[in-house]
Amino acid sequence: MSRKEAILEAALKLFNQTNTQSATTNHIAKAMGISPGNLHYHYKNREEIVRLLYLQLREEAFLSVAELPKNIQELQEHEKLLIQIQWKYRFFFKEMLFLFSRDKELEEMYIKDNIAHRERISHSMKIFEEEGELVFTDKKSFEFVVDSILMAWQFYASYLHTLGKTLDSQGAVQAVEHTHNAMRPYMTHKEI
Amino acid sequence: MSRKEAILEAALKLFNQTNTQSATTNHIAKAMGISPGNLHYHYKNREEIVRLLYLQLREEAFLSVAELPKNIQELQEHEKLLIQIQWKYRFFFKEMLFLFSRDKELEEMYIKDNIAHRERISHSMKIFEEEGELVFTDKKSFEFVVDSILMAWQFYASYLHTLGKTLDSQGAVQAVEHTHNAMRPYMTHKEI
Repeated sequence: MSRKEAILEAALKLFNQTNTQSATTNHIAKAMGISPGNLHYHYKNREEIVRLLYLQLREEAFLSVAELPKNIQELQEHEKLLIQIQWKYRFFFKEMLFLFSRDKELEEMYIKDNIAHRERISHSMKIFEEEGELVFTDKKSFEFVVDSILMAWQFYASYLHTLGKTLDSQGAVQAVEHTHNAMRPYMTHKEI
Repeated sequence: MSRKEAILEAALKLFNQTNTQSATTNHIAKAMGISPGNLHYHYKNREEIVRLLYLQLREEAFLSVAELPKNIQELQEHEKLLIQIQWKYRFFFKEMLFLFSRDKELEEMYIKDNIAHRERISHSMKIFEEEGELVFTDKKSFEFVVDSILMAWQFYASYLHTLGKTLDSQGAVQAVEHTHNAMRPYMTHKEI
């Protein structure tokens, strides 16, 4: 691992432990036993580090689920992989909106990705409908299910936190079930 | 309005405009044309200000909806009032998880309130069931609806933001509809 990559890893660890404001670039350098100057040789500022960690998160999510799920079972398998990414980059999911208020570039990048993500979920639901796994009688129900799945990806870990829970193995099961329950009224095979 | 209240109001305005980290107590004092010393005479630090703003938010939400809704229509009326509070204190909904990482006292207070809030939503759904407006055939569906309503209260404004939208009049309509759509498959009068 290069020094540059090692800095990202150390930053991720500290951001997850505390938050992006308590973990300054000086703290990150200190945790690695390098000088602040050395860190700044690789990264201009904390915003740049956060942005690169987001790109890394996005890359890992994309590699995990490069293809759209062909059925509900595949969707659930994808979700299990994505929950690991939510946990690995938990600082990002916790601070997302706060980070946007500090970095417009990050915000714009994220919103663009997220709109595309919503399109993919929408497309998956249409595939499930074509395959006869789901039946939507109206547009509102369809949009609700798409929104629920996207909201769960972005905020379910935060939601668990606000109830004093965490994304442990039990929390992960709840997260997958939440998405499943959103689709359930529209499933043709209710036993799934 | 007392000086003490005026400080809270100025802080709320600045927090909403930027975020709780960019708006320091010095900035708040400057915006009011008072000395930092004068501000610190009233409030120990920013955490105390944030905590009091949260208590204010909670009080306003409670005053808006002191009694549980008796039917789905009342729930929708409540939600319209609560959306105004979400907008008024939007910094809090954006930064919630980040703020918890900086203030354990706030976190504990919030989680306790939120668990009680979930109980109230759960109780409302049981009332709607008793009144014959909703029918749940299983516990999973029931819990899903309760979770969806609570998640929407906490994160729907953030969700809109991540799609490049905001809690304007159109966003508010979407927020109320989201909750409605969560209950819809279980409604006995589908035309509502």
